Amino acid sequence: MSKRALVVLSGGQDSTTCLYWAIERFGRECVEAITFDYGQRHRIELECARRIAERAGIDQLELPIDTFAALGGNSLIDTAMEVAESPDSDLPNTFVPGRNIIFLTFAAAYAWQKGISNIVTGVAQTDYSGYPDCRRETIDSLSATLQLGMERKFVIHTPLMHLSKKETVLLALELGAIDAMSDTHTCYEGARPPCGRCPACVLRAKGFAEAGIEDPLVLL
Amino acid sequence: MSKRALVVLSGGQDSTTCLYWAIERFGRECVEAITFDYGQRHRIELECARRIAERAGIDQLELPIDTFAALGGNSLIDTAMEVAESPDSDLPNTFVPGRNIIFLTFAAAYAWQKGISNIVTGVAQTDYSGYPDCRRETIDSLSATLQLGMERKFVIHTPLMHLSKKETVLLALELGAIDAMSDTHTCYEGARPPCGRCPACVLRAKGFAEAGIEDPLVLL
Repeated sequence: MSKRALVVLSGGQDSTTCLYWAIERFGRECVEAITFDYGQRHRIELECARRIAERAGIDQLELPIDTFAALGGNSLIDTAMEVAESPDSDLPNTFVPGRNIIFLTFAAAYAWQKGISNIVTGVAQTDYSGYPDCRRETIDSLSATLQLGMERKFVIHTPLMHLSKKETVLLALELGAIDAMSDTHTCYEGARPPCGRCPACVLRAKGFAEAGIEDPLVLL
Repeated sequence: MSKRALVVLSGGQDSTTCLYWAIERFGRECVEAITFDYGQRHRIELECARRIAERAGIDQLELPIDTFAALGGNSLIDTAMEVAESPDSDLPNTFVPGRNIIFLTFAAAYAWQKGISNIVTGVAQTDYSGYPDCRRETIDSLSATLQLGMERKFVIHTPLMHLSKKETVLLALELGAIDAMSDTHTCYEGARPPCGRCPACVLRAKGFAEAGIEDPLVLL
């Protein structure tokens, strides 16, 4: 079992906190990051992820996934769609079916090639959107699937799984990751500085407020 | 539970047999096919898949996946590599880690959008290469993962899972799919008519010989 870890880094607050968690847990020299360019509406996320990895002194691989854009049908990719509730589902139209399963499977494929056993992801069951692929039981099932399908031992670490946004901010504080938050991206509108009004901005602001910490992104 | 089915069609003998199996089981008007352009070394597979779908009178979606080529490192994609045993693994270097997991997850994402509940794949545990993502237990685990991760009921059908190549040929005969075999592609060398010498050609020839049926591809 290798002591090396691969962090799925989106450029957001949660995965950035996970990057610092992995650095503390495994040591900087044993951590690398993977970021997916899946045609996300807000390209600034990719630039944020690059800056975050650089600031943390971590190697980062950016991998393309052109398939979600070809599938279409959701507002995180399709710029013609408004972010909204889905008319025919309980899930919001920001739900990209299979997104985290695909991300973690490609992360595992890369980890397989490099002999890395630990994969770290910022998914959280407490995520307001209630995406089913962020839940503990989905991740546990996927972990079993990947180990069976690749004949390799993997541990998928989800340090934020049961944390509230307030607790995630406090964890970032403990890990010395607050300054790095100025490089993260959260806003669904793609604005920087953030719009402050979309559900993602409101949730982030609430977490910082409850933790009693100023968000360096808002101070930009 | 919808009565519609999505067949993962690679353009090979196994997935073509599965397409005819699905047509018999669900009815032609309830079946569609999905084919992945993942940068496979032998582009002829894609042309074969198109012809097979057309011959069967089935709608087919071709989806790109550019990620495996970006990951590199295996001979089914990387044209600079020879097909061979891997020096540092029990698996041959044709093993693309996570390939079937990715295919079935994207198939499920498309099925999710279209309200299709049945996914059909030609994976077989008896496959000579022993790819671990073709085994029953991997597929069962993935099926659970997809249902949890997408909050949708899916059945992954694997009609060939425990069949020998001979039995697969006999099933194709029973389903009236032998003629369609002339449009399939198997050869690892990418040759058409097939080289007859690579492991994939040898395995295919053995199956037809044992079934006592002439392979229409070889008669081309």
